[in-house]
Amino acid sequence: MYTLYYSPGSANMLVHLILLECGAPYTLERVDLDAGQQRSAAYLALNPNGVVPTLVIDGVPHGEAAALATLLLERHPDAALAPAADDPQRADYLQWMFYLANSQQSLFRQWFYPGDHLPAAADSIKEAARIGIEAGWSRINAHLATHGPYLLGNRFSAVDLYVLMLMRWSRNMPRPATSWPHLAELAARLKARASWKQLCAAEGLVEWA
Amino acid sequence: MYTLYYSPGSANMLVHLILLECGAPYTLERVDLDAGQQRSAAYLALNPNGVVPTLVIDGVPHGEAAALATLLLERHPDAALAPAADDPQRADYLQWMFYLANSQQSLFRQWFYPGDHLPAAADSIKEAARIGIEAGWSRINAHLATHGPYLLGNRFSAVDLYVLMLMRWSRNMPRPATSWPHLAELAARLKARASWKQLCAAEGLVEWA
Ligand SMILES: N[C@@H](CCC(=O)N[C@@H](CS)C(=O)NCC(=O)O)C(=O)O
Ligand SMILES: N[C@@H](CCC(=O)N[C@@H](CS)C(=O)NCC(=O)O)C(=O)O
Repeated sequence: MYTLYYSPGSANMLVHLILLECGAPYTLERVDLDAGQQRSAAYLALNPNGVVPTLVIDGVPHGEAAALATLLLERHPDAALAPAADDPQRADYLQWMFYLANSQQSLFRQWFYPGDHLPAAADSIKEAARIGIEAGWSRINAHLATHGPYLLGNRFSAVDLYVLMLMRWSRNMPRPATSWPHLAELAARLKARASWKQLCAAEGLVEWA
Repeated sequence: MYTLYYSPGSANMLVHLILLECGAPYTLERVDLDAGQQRSAAYLALNPNGVVPTLVIDGVPHGEAAALATLLLERHPDAALAPAADDPQRADYLQWMFYLANSQQSLFRQWFYPGDHLPAAADSIKEAARIGIEAGWSRINAHLATHGPYLLGNRFSAVDLYVLMLMRWSRNMPRPATSWPHLAELAARLKARASWKQLCAAEGLVEWA
């Protein structure tokens, strides 16, 4: 049994989609980010960085969306959402997970929280993040053009769910991810899955649903 | 047999330290970043993002430092540098690896390449990166104070080597990582290992060696 601390549409989406794809039993606990609940003493005891998601596994809280994804798929090998350690595609899987965490997701953090470190420079930081995010979409789109339709070729995996979450985050940007044709095709394909519909219902997502 | 494409002191350090700790056979290929060799057609064929490191495994090139670290440790379980999939510390291991990739390493990219996306804002971006990096050191230092001496407690792991690489990158910053007492202690402990001395000799590192 898992407990997922979430806020609708936030970085928890990746973990939530994986729980749904795995058919794993879980309960949801909503964290009210607008009210600052992520900075309450009770929540900081679960997640010292004060962010969602937190996943409680066997009574122990853990953080970092991409780490939780990787961990869950090691615990649920039958879901076949990640190549196993002895699979030749394992390297590609890890490479994409870390690329998205290191590059695309971190730029989104700056897009949504441009004043985190230096409020006076928020406008420039937001603009630089936009340019970086668009460069990332171009790169992923080019990869899909030659190696698609999924990030790992013919094999659907958690990497696609990670990209799907990030694509949704771009929906109100000047150039949403779906402006790139292969990303649009990937989004359509993934949004047709049962897990996406279940996610939207469970988190109450109506936009880009 | 592995081939590591590297530039002295760059993101390859993590992968290089792991190869040394594992006692795995490898050869080195130097990439001259100052000469722009990372953007040559030959190198882009190995690493489409045009960065180091690239690790060639069984003839196939792979990228992303933290992904390569995780992959190598799955291939060399005897080195015991990462908790195995069924180990209760696996979650902490993955959480730290992804936290460092998502947060601290991505901020260093902005510190070293502040003009990557929006050259006109380079100064503000560098300053924001400095503040973010220092906040990260405070966080890691606080964790070590209560859960050290290693990131995973009494257990030395690849997470420590990752932090070591990032600490070296901070050596010429206004507040180097070693200004934080528990980080200074960790650095001293890790620099006493044979792998660090071998790394410095192989990459020709003299500063902070
Ligand atoms: N590296 C973290 C980042 C999570 C993150 O930034 N979450 C955002 C929502 S998408 C959050 O909790 N924001 C609230 C805040 O920072 O106060 C992860 O991947 O889990
Ligand atoms: N996400 C990549 C980033 C690697 C990276 O930024 N490497 C730098 C050196 S530390 C590089 O190759 N810079 C040359 C350039 O960007 O032109 C990884 O972790 O491997």
